[in-house]
Amino acid sequence: MPKPINRQIVLVSRPRGLPDSTIFSMQEAPIPKPQEGEVLVKSLYLTVDPYMRGRMNDAPSYIEPFALDEPPTGGVVGVVVESKSPLFKEGDYVLGFLSWTDYCVAKASSLLKLDDKMAPITTALGILGMPGMTAYFGLLDIGKPKSGETVVVSGAAGAVGMAVGQIAKILGCRVVGIAGKQEKISYLTQELGFDAGINYTSEHFEEELHDACPNGIDVYFDNVGGDVSDAATKLMNKYGRIVLCGQISVYNLEKPGMGPRLDWILLTRSILKKGFIVTDYMDRYPEGIAQMSQWIKEGKIKYRENIIEGLENTPRAFLGLFKGENIGKQLVKVSR
Amino acid sequence: MPKPINRQIVLVSRPRGLPDSTIFSMQEAPIPKPQEGEVLVKSLYLTVDPYMRGRMNDAPSYIEPFALDEPPTGGVVGVVVESKSPLFKEGDYVLGFLSWTDYCVAKASSLLKLDDKMAPITTALGILGMPGMTAYFGLLDIGKPKSGETVVVSGAAGAVGMAVGQIAKILGCRVVGIAGKQEKISYLTQELGFDAGINYTSEHFEEELHDACPNGIDVYFDNVGGDVSDAATKLMNKYGRIVLCGQISVYNLEKPGMGPRLDWILLTRSILKKGFIVTDYMDRYPEGIAQMSQWIKEGKIKYRENIIEGLENTPRAFLGLFKGENIGKQLVKVSR
Repeated sequence: MPKPINRQIVLVSRPRGLPDSTIFSMQEAPIPKPQEGEVLVKSLYLTVDPYMRGRMNDAPSYIEPFALDEPPTGGVVGVVVESKSPLFKEGDYVLGFLSWTDYCVAKASSLLKLDDKMAPITTALGILGMPGMTAYFGLLDIGKPKSGETVVVSGAAGAVGMAVGQIAKILGCRVVGIAGKQEKISYLTQELGFDAGINYTSEHFEEELHDACPNGIDVYFDNVGGDVSDAATKLMNKYGRIVLCGQISVYNLEKPGMGPRLDWILLTRSILKKGFIVTDYMDRYPEGIAQMSQWIKEGKIKYRENIIEGLENTPRAFLGLFKGENIGKQLVKVSR
Repeated sequence: MPKPINRQIVLVSRPRGLPDSTIFSMQEAPIPKPQEGEVLVKSLYLTVDPYMRGRMNDAPSYIEPFALDEPPTGGVVGVVVESKSPLFKEGDYVLGFLSWTDYCVAKASSLLKLDDKMAPITTALGILGMPGMTAYFGLLDIGKPKSGETVVVSGAAGAVGMAVGQIAKILGCRVVGIAGKQEKISYLTQELGFDAGINYTSEHFEEELHDACPNGIDVYFDNVGGDVSDAATKLMNKYGRIVLCGQISVYNLEKPGMGPRLDWILLTRSILKKGFIVTDYMDRYPEGIAQMSQWIKEGKIKYRENIIEGLENTPRAFLGLFKGENIGKQLVKVSR
């Protein structure tokens, strides 16, 4: 049996604009040794998310930038292969904020134990993890949709968008999803029960969105920003709510793009717009996980994972996020 | 004694861009007769406000446009000269949403009786009226300032801005006002207790605002929009609140101007931005009036009125709003 090595995807340069594969390099390193209170985790699945693009910049921000010449970090589901902590034993499944490597050492206290009898372990990175909680708290706490209202979600075929639309349907709303490919739109309307799906690449996007929202928009859940969000903003009703969750259209810009000033719409229609990150709701995760699990069991919420195999394909999975390639949660299966 | 005539300022054309005096005409009409349930009101003071610019457009909006060839309407304080209602008697002071005329007939049930022993009747158009309530509810209900936080207000020398800054001082905040003239800034800092005043016409405006807010901005009360608001947005702290109250910088534009897309700031800092109009809080006016009256009695809130004499000068008073001419509430004294 060959000596196992620890492959790692390293950020070797900072992207300017749209990133490409040259910013990453796969390197090999020895497998680290856990110290007292630590465990060695073998990565099983890792998640790539659009927000990570922001961390690749060196600009001062409210999220610490990724270090150069080190592996980026993010949500990882793994298995404990060596434990120096009473909290975990070999074979335990864990969720952690770990690095893009085959193996890594983590403080035991920073990991969450996963029960694979309760739910597939991948859901900890998706519908029962950050994306699911983002959808749940953003929609319910900021969007506050009421039965009969119209909810529009952009990036609708992403992990967050899908969950948003389905939760809104459970609450009795009319749900309109915006995505960029016909395949995605068909999935939303045929599989997930969205009332309508609009393709933002359509020449008549604004008209189509208008027609899909005959009573205007009460809640706009924004994953993308830019022109798509301008169109939605113009259709907002009095007392509407805009949930700012993502701005994928601007993550790759070197400086903010220009757009029409639409605050007069927010003003004259008494509209609320609020940004958030999911960790704002960390103390309410148990509520969110319990409710989402319940809905999944009842068949009211479906989820979809798009899994690419092999740690070496992590850059491709990440870059694909900006090409609109994935439907649902984009994961990398690290170990085959 | 000459027969009294009823002068009226009529909107004779819709402005495009910055309005000028040609859109108004002074005309004469007979004094109308009240019917049963109505009263004849002689105008004493009327208010001109920036939001009225929006009503001069014909565009569909959430505020009904002013009719062409009729007098605009707005807040008027007057005296009842003939009553066909048990609700009012001759000599009563009233507040109503009336027209830019010497006299007008109003339904008695639409008028509010004013007690000139409690407060000067002009305050019903200012600090105890729409501008005061706008400041009170916008700042407290949306801005939610906490002691020690930094509150920045633009249009700070206007009726709303002045009240906002003084309320924020009462609550223990650091208060920075933005205005366009040195005379205004001196008034804010020397007379009203603002901690700092910044002139947005300064070449180094952004730096000066930054320096005046060493701990960032927690609440930005926006009366102006545009570049000034961009600068404030960039300085917002995590969990900051932006109160959208006015957008005077855009009211005269024929279509929305362009500006940098800054929603990523709202997103990454979990910022709330909310528009409102004061009528959203109509059911809480008694609370607002009671509290503001109390603060005025205690000398904690000062107000200032800028009174132009003569109905015929109403257009000049209105147009002056867009030249930054007034400090405090701009009123017209209709009857000399």
